Amino acid sequence: MALFGQPKNNKQETGFSVTPWEVTGQVDYERLVKEFGTELITDELLQRLVSLAGGSNHMLRRRIFFSHRDLNHVLDDYEAGRGFFLYTGRGPSGPMHIGHIIPFHFTKWLQERFSVNLYIQITDDEKFLEEKRGLTLEETRRWSYENILDIIAVGFDPDRTFIFQDVDFIGNMYPLAIRVARKVNFSWVRAVFGFDHQTNIGMIFYPAIQIVPALFERRRCLIPAAIDQDPYWRVQRDIAESLGYYKTAAIHSKFLMPLSGPEGKMSASQRETAIFLSDDAKSVRKKIWQAFSGGQPTVELHRKYGGNPDVDVAYQWLYYFFEEDDRKVEQLRQDYMSGKLLSGEMKEILIEKVVKFLERHQEAREEAREKYHLFTREGKLAQQMWETKFGLET
Amino acid sequence: MALFGQPKNNKQETGFSVTPWEVTGQVDYERLVKEFGTELITDELLQRLVSLAGGSNHMLRRRIFFSHRDLNHVLDDYEAGRGFFLYTGRGPSGPMHIGHIIPFHFTKWLQERFSVNLYIQITDDEKFLEEKRGLTLEETRRWSYENILDIIAVGFDPDRTFIFQDVDFIGNMYPLAIRVARKVNFSWVRAVFGFDHQTNIGMIFYPAIQIVPALFERRRCLIPAAIDQDPYWRVQRDIAESLGYYKTAAIHSKFLMPLSGPEGKMSASQRETAIFLSDDAKSVRKKIWQAFSGGQPTVELHRKYGGNPDVDVAYQWLYYFFEEDDRKVEQLRQDYMSGKLLSGEMKEILIEKVVKFLERHQEAREEAREKYHLFTREGKLAQQMWETKFGLET
Repeated sequence: MALFGQPKNNKQETGFSVTPWEVTGQVDYERLVKEFGTELITDELLQRLVSLAGGSNHMLRRRIFFSHRDLNHVLDDYEAGRGFFLYTGRGPSGPMHIGHIIPFHFTKWLQERFSVNLYIQITDDEKFLEEKRGLTLEETRRWSYENILDIIAVGFDPDRTFIFQDVDFIGNMYPLAIRVARKVNFSWVRAVFGFDHQTNIGMIFYPAIQIVPALFERRRCLIPAAIDQDPYWRVQRDIAESLGYYKTAAIHSKFLMPLSGPEGKMSASQRETAIFLSDDAKSVRKKIWQAFSGGQPTVELHRKYGGNPDVDVAYQWLYYFFEEDDRKVEQLRQDYMSGKLLSGEMKEILIEKVVKFLERHQEAREEAREKYHLFTREGKLAQQMWETKFGLET
Repeated sequence: MALFGQPKNNKQETGFSVTPWEVTGQVDYERLVKEFGTELITDELLQRLVSLAGGSNHMLRRRIFFSHRDLNHVLDDYEAGRGFFLYTGRGPSGPMHIGHIIPFHFTKWLQERFSVNLYIQITDDEKFLEEKRGLTLEETRRWSYENILDIIAVGFDPDRTFIFQDVDFIGNMYPLAIRVARKVNFSWVRAVFGFDHQTNIGMIFYPAIQIVPALFERRRCLIPAAIDQDPYWRVQRDIAESLGYYKTAAIHSKFLMPLSGPEGKMSASQRETAIFLSDDAKSVRKKIWQAFSGGQPTVELHRKYGGNPDVDVAYQWLYYFFEEDDRKVEQLRQDYMSGKLLSGEMKEILIEKVVKFLERHQEAREEAREKYHLFTREGKLAQQMWETKFGLET
């Protein structure tokens, strides 16, 4: 059994830290790619992806999804007719914010373009087992339902998408989970996830549960997710072939800058750093007005010296997701740097986009209640899944 | 979270060792009771049990079931009308031998006398996760079916008995298993079960799965089992009340002496030490004839000095289970010690009993195929169990 070292990333040395449970400091993504052992998406790979997808995506062009593992093999498989499938997830520890939902929009784009199955794991067990969160199982299950509505609102294909809570679906996953677990020892999860002797035995077993969906089909899995989840996929990649499955591929996103500025990631537990999917127009306006800005202290100084878009939250959000038009976003950058565009004006542009986005989302979320059973039980893929005991298919 | 020390029992010091996975050396049961912190069954407690049971049992009278935890409270609950339930299990790692089935006969006696529910866990996951056994999951599942037939053959009440394989029933147990797991950390299972950093994460989680059935009802559980399983119950007892359940009670048996003599316990992996439930009369005869004897080297010396029943396998088996009549068994002991009864004669007496027992067992086992669905799916208790998600009842 191979042993992964813990990511060498060490906050004292680098000023930032990225683990599946915490992101602090200002992330140096190039450094992270080296430390995690992933690869940057080259221009060539991007072109190939866009060409096979039959269309482009602004989050790819701007390298919001910037890093990958084996994306080239996914495209090989697609071209050769072997296909692939998508897997992503959500830890239901509270209300979802904009930073949580954006990767789902990118995932939807992938599903539409490649017509592939998508599995979305809702880790009600993990969020209960993470003791420091202090959540009851009832709470993580209540949040699961609420979060699933937000995810359905993104607009996935109900016959190609299966959304499941671990606690509900464990009966179908456990035989495969123990096959995974038998290949992973305490040393290994200690090194990869930083577990110690105080870690509870549910958390210690949990990585097996998160790895199982990447083995749901006997073809390559592509996982679109923020890069902090990568440690799980490293474990999957080290054992998948010995179990007769493919090593999973992954495509990693950067974090959306919190409202408070360029450090860390948005956190549902620090409510002022995030805009929630349930926020109304008034509170969106208020929060964005209070967001960290790259502007100068006065209008006069701003006109003279210009602003810094690299740390301006409003610009960064427009760039990350909300302004799809590359020319427009470049114009905003230029105008901000030259001082022509004021911080308040940038914020107004973002506010309009976010308010519109949330209006659409909230409407779709109401309609999602009617579709819940399709994604979780009765859609074509969901039905197949409930009929399958993974790890006992022989 | 309290920490149990590992049983101080240390083979170097005591000449024997008892863990859930291994028993070696000649067990000093009085010492084990002190080290495990259980209690010997006093004459007074025995009288109370027999009186409430409305009848006696030779395995109790002879202190084959010799130790307990909270058996007095079980009887209090029974008298007060709160009732109790029984839980025991089987690790399906191979064919069952006589040492495996005897505790089930005692359990049946308890069920009949007190008309209580009985849960029998078949740990197909554990036996797969124990790497040194080298069993595939398919193998532990095949043995599960075979072992369940042997267990059904004992004659339990099909409407009050539920027999389940972990891998099949996990969907109903997992929510409660993670509630248990959240309260148990690595330090604790390391101390109690001797796990280390090489232990796989499935084994580390597994104690939670074995604890769950002791929480199937909101009343006291009584576990009849060999004393080597006691470490699990100590963990259950330390967390049960904080989860709103009763601490489990237990009644512990000694080990049936292996055919090879007074050291260790019978082992299915050392086939010559055991008589299997599928053995025919010829092989029973052969094995018992080869068993370790307490007799003298020659008939003359035996007549003169007598034999030692304490190490004579045939006598020990008759005492342990096969001769129910106390006067007869005492007569055998006297006659053996005086030299009146030869080792070969003792063996013949045992052979007759064992052959008869196995004939009856093998017949009942054939009939068990027809009853399998009752115990596992369709009996009254089984049906209730499949409708319940433990740990999500709120």
